[in-house]
Amino acid sequence: MTAHPAEILETFDNPAPENDYTIRISVPEFTCLCPKTGQPDFAELEITYVPDRLCVELKALKLYMVSYRDKGAFHEAITNTILADLVHVLQPRFMRLAAHFNVRGGIYTTVTAEHRQSSWQSPSAVELP
Amino acid sequence: MTAHPAEILETFDNPAPENDYTIRISVPEFTCLCPKTGQPDFAELEITYVPDRLCVELKALKLYMVSYRDKGAFHEAITNTILADLVHVLQPRFMRLAAHFNVRGGIYTTVTAEHRQSSWQSPSAVELP
Amino acid sequence: MTAHPAEILETFDNPAPENDYTIRISVPEFTCLCPKTGQPDFAELEITYVPDRLCVELKALKLYMVSYRDKGAFHEAITNTILADLVHVLQPRFMRLAAHFNVRGGIYTTVTAEHRQSSWQSPSAVELP
Amino acid sequence: MTAHPAEILETFDNPAPENDYTIRISVPEFTCLCPKTGQPDFAELEITYVPDRLCVELKALKLYMVSYRDKGAFHEAITNTILADLVHVLQPRFMRLAAHFNVRGGIYTTVTAEHRQSSWQSPSAVELP
Amino acid sequence: MTAHPAEILETFDNPAPENDYTIRISVPEFTCLCPKTGQPDFAELEITYVPDRLCVELKALKLYMVSYRDKGAFHEAITNTILADLVHVLQPRFMRLAAHFNVRGGIYTTVTAEHRQSSWQSPSAVELP
Amino acid sequence: MTAHPAEILETFDNPAPENDYTIRISVPEFTCLCPKTGQPDFAELEITYVPDRLCVELKALKLYMVSYRDKGAFHEAITNTILADLVHVLQPRFMRLAAHFNVRGGIYTTVTAEHRQSSWQSPSAVELP
Amino acid sequence: MTAHPAEILETFDNPAPENDYTIRISVPEFTCLCPKTGQPDFAELEITYVPDRLCVELKALKLYMVSYRDKGAFHEAITNTILADLVHVLQPRFMRLAAHFNVRGGIYTTVTAEHRQSSWQSPSAVELP
Amino acid sequence: MTAHPAEILETFDNPAPENDYTIRISVPEFTCLCPKTGQPDFAELEITYVPDRLCVELKALKLYMVSYRDKGAFHEAITNTILADLVHVLQPRFMRLAAHFNVRGGIYTTVTAEHRQSSWQSPSAVELP
Amino acid sequence: MTAHPAEILETFDNPAPENDYTIRISVPEFTCLCPKTGQPDFAELEITYVPDRLCVELKALKLYMVSYRDKGAFHEAITNTILADLVHVLQPRFMRLAAHFNVRGGIYTTVTAEHRQSSWQSPSAVELP
Amino acid sequence: MTAHPAEILETFDNPAPENDYTIRISVPEFTCLCPKTGQPDFAELEITYVPDRLCVELKALKLYMVSYRDKGAFHEAITNTILADLVHVLQPRFMRLAAHFNVRGGIYTTVTAEHRQSSWQSPSAVELP
Repeated sequence: MTAHPAEILETFDNPAPENDYTIRISVPEFTCLCPKTGQPDFAELEITYVPDRLCVELKALKLYMVSYRDKGAFHEAITNTILADLVHVLQPRFMRLAAHFNVRGGIYTTVTAEHRQSSWQSPSAVELP
Repeated sequence: MTAHPAEILETFDNPAPENDYTIRISVPEFTCLCPKTGQPDFAELEITYVPDRLCVELKALKLYMVSYRDKGAFHEAITNTILADLVHVLQPRFMRLAAHFNVRGGIYTTVTAEHRQSSWQSPSAVELP
Repeated sequence: MTAHPAEILETFDNPAPENDYTIRISVPEFTCLCPKTGQPDFAELEITYVPDRLCVELKALKLYMVSYRDKGAFHEAITNTILADLVHVLQPRFMRLAAHFNVRGGIYTTVTAEHRQSSWQSPSAVELP
Repeated sequence: MTAHPAEILETFDNPAPENDYTIRISVPEFTCLCPKTGQPDFAELEITYVPDRLCVELKALKLYMVSYRDKGAFHEAITNTILADLVHVLQPRFMRLAAHFNVRGGIYTTVTAEHRQSSWQSPSAVELP
Repeated sequence: MTAHPAEILETFDNPAPENDYTIRISVPEFTCLCPKTGQPDFAELEITYVPDRLCVELKALKLYMVSYRDKGAFHEAITNTILADLVHVLQPRFMRLAAHFNVRGGIYTTVTAEHRQSSWQSPSAVELP
Repeated sequence: MTAHPAEILETFDNPAPENDYTIRISVPEFTCLCPKTGQPDFAELEITYVPDRLCVELKALKLYMVSYRDKGAFHEAITNTILADLVHVLQPRFMRLAAHFNVRGGIYTTVTAEHRQSSWQSPSAVELP
Repeated sequence: MTAHPAEILETFDNPAPENDYTIRISVPEFTCLCPKTGQPDFAELEITYVPDRLCVELKALKLYMVSYRDKGAFHEAITNTILADLVHVLQPRFMRLAAHFNVRGGIYTTVTAEHRQSSWQSPSAVELP
Repeated sequence: MTAHPAEILETFDNPAPENDYTIRISVPEFTCLCPKTGQPDFAELEITYVPDRLCVELKALKLYMVSYRDKGAFHEAITNTILADLVHVLQPRFMRLAAHFNVRGGIYTTVTAEHRQSSWQSPSAVELP
Repeated sequence: MTAHPAEILETFDNPAPENDYTIRISVPEFTCLCPKTGQPDFAELEITYVPDRLCVELKALKLYMVSYRDKGAFHEAITNTILADLVHVLQPRFMRLAAHFNVRGGIYTTVTAEHRQSSWQSPSAVELP
Repeated sequence: MTAHPAEILETFDNPAPENDYTIRISVPEFTCLCPKTGQPDFAELEITYVPDRLCVELKALKLYMVSYRDKGAFHEAITNTILADLVHVLQPRFMRLAAHFNVRGGIYTTVTAEHRQSSWQSPSAVELP
């Protein structure tokens, strides 16, 4: 029996929890199955987050991504599900997930969803010339 | 008799209506006819929307785009018409349509129009370093 | 006798005057003469505007651009003049003109000018993730 | 005796002083000497300014840049000096100077400095979709 | 005995402390060791800072970077440590450090952290058309 | 009734028949229909030829390309058919046709075919350093 | 029971067997498993062939590629196996297969193999200026 | 009265006539008129030659190119004419002229012609790994 | 004691020794030390070979590359040494090694060396249009 | 008194004289003076050579390049002179020098010259698929 995907994710303690800083992770090798046709879909996932107490361990993150290889998943639903799994495990101050799906029927689709802690204030951006 | 284009569009329920998230769809194979010369025009359409209760089904969206293949259409008018059709069917919280037309007479044209629900507030953007 | 350039410009009625939307026009084949040396100058012009009641007709716009082929013109002055001509004829809600001049003496120059109707409020930008 | 660099700069009257508009000048052929080693340094300078009553003449600007060919100059100091010279002569409403220095010791450096007239208000930016 | 990395860093006086200006330094040749496997990791570091009284000397900065060549370091921890070292020595008004790590296990990671002086106000950005 | 495509093509006399020289024509806006599904296919055609007594007129060539807009055509067959039509009308010394079809089912296809006059010798290529 | 991969491949009659022409097929979505670790590998396959009596049907080719999704395969062996399968079914005059594997352990690998009919002579290449 | 274009061209003595070496000149600012419509055409010309006793002077070459600004010219004819003019004046061992014309009617055209002295042997190319 | 580098290399049996085929391996993370200054050098190595009886195992190849991390090495010598090591272990039919070194003193260097078995004939290249 | 440029060049013994291999050196920071106007010219030099008994030392090569900083030099002559200097000192089996000069008067120029030892045979190129 396959574990629930979120159980695969592992974490380690944020080494600098006193700061708001950003971790960006790009996963260009995501693949799942189209629920209608059973044929493979491919996507590149981009995760951007501001950790709170925990950071995601990259080797386990990769296994989590691989766990979708034989699952059927619609573009919009899977993006929101993966975000929810990561938020559940990491409880980040902020997280954004963008999923860039490969062309199907001559059409390209990207789905982007965000989560932010209700108590968290994004620091004012410094835009330097 | 050809159906009204908007009748071709199909929808499915937004799987995460509790969130504001973004769906971007790129259609690089749009073609219609120039109303003056009858010659083909070509464009790449980019749709960006925040769904409310409904998402657009991609296969039907493609058929909707194909339905313009034999229609005459001016750049500015057709961009606003396609946006209106999509808004009529999806009632999204926000939608932007950018149409990048191929060069004609040595001149390149892009038309970009937006719709937003009167009651919808764009969430404050988080700009991470 | 050559007509005043602005007389060459033609317009058509904005098909969606109830909306603020954007038309971008790129003219990569602009050429005029250097007033000092009489030698040709080359530029790419980028026009971005929010139409009010009128849109510019592209074929006439091209003829207007061609009308500068034998005229002497300094970079800074001609950018402001073309913007003034287009504003005079179209009375747009907003217009920006960027002129990217080809390298001369190892130096590249771009001049960018804007016009906005005093009564017009730029809609608040929606920045989607 | 070499003239003070700022004496080389020439100006002409701004043809549209009633508007805030932008002039961007890129100088990819800047070279000076490293004060420590005497060896040549190379940089690309980018000048962006909103003229007030005066614009800089490009041929004289090039001679001004050439006048640094045999001078020793540190990255941070020379960027601020060139900005000061240009501001002294042009008295612009706003000016930004970015100097992109070629790689030295496997390290790339860019220095960017700005000047704005105390009385000048940057017009609110129009961000079109 | 290897010196503490921060002792390698050298500074010189900011030649224009009266202005807020920006220095960007890119170090594409950073390498350290993976604490788990002992195998080399590679990254490109980008430092952006607004100096206060001191600027960092580039040759010493390079030696500081080389001092990590034989040290084990996790992505998130090392980014925060290097930022802390540079802030300790330079006391800049603002500093941002972005570390782009090479792909490992098919996954790309970038970590970005910032520091700003509590008393420092980022000047309002001028966004020119 | 639609004319046979090859009847649309027009020619003019080669202005330099005494030389072997090359004409390259790129047609990025080719579209036809998939014979199986009836859905549109898109391709970019590249024609390269050494004219003999005749050159192809570009406006008529465009109309010829447009004549495929409502025809069903397999990738391999249509490439050979268009080459045959052009060879029939122009009788060139050499002609190559490459058809780059847009992605279908995640797969990209290019078909390239050539014709050369049996009596024609390709001049020995000069490869300059 | 899974069919032997080569049984999935389907063909159709070459519509122009009298000519040597080239068909290029790019398959950017190939994935199999690493025989050592069981983890997914990803590659882009490029097939180039001169058909003899048969061409490969693209939909069946895609299914053939998908049939490797759960198979373990070393880079060098699988490239030669896929080439052998395609040669077995199509009996082409010439075929080249290049497999570009995604980075593993910081190393990128491409394997390229060819087959040519013993009786087939590659036509002398025409290199046009 | 305008001089014959070829009279504008000036030459200087080849400083190394004992060697076969290559001079490449790119002229991105060529413009003439379409003989049918009177509208401007634009092209980038690339000249590659092996000089014999004479090299072309660049300032005069530019004036020669400018002399076509008000002339009507078909793509194929003008390419052969310019090549003939340059060959007439320079008598090079080898010359190639490629004219890349801007898109017209959605179609891009390049015309490439060569001349070689009957007595000249292209040196065997050295292809280094 | 560090093993001789060539002892680190491991091999496996070529799965298709009956064919001449090509394996390309790119190693973007090579680093050694400059023998003069002791400072790190960085390079990207590209290995291209036609295997005979043996292929190189990639994990061991990586360790071999890492073994140069603390060795001093001149550009020209190390390229020939690594080629010799690989040839010694693999006895390939053909091997080429290109080493692209990072910029030093504003100068970029690439060294490329080849080995071929005296008895091996490179198959005649098939150049398809 | 400035030394003759060729006296600045230093060499070291070729570490692998038994092989024909290739060294490519790119010098993007070459500058000299235009003999007509006295204004600076800029170029990127690319040296490719097969060493015989000697290789060029890079630090001395850089000083040699810097020695042209204050010299007047025509494009065609200086390329042949630098090649002659390098050949004089290194006596390479083969050498090619390509000098890409920055745009002047809207025209880009590259001059490429070669030298080969009369007794040297270029090895037959291996073109792998």
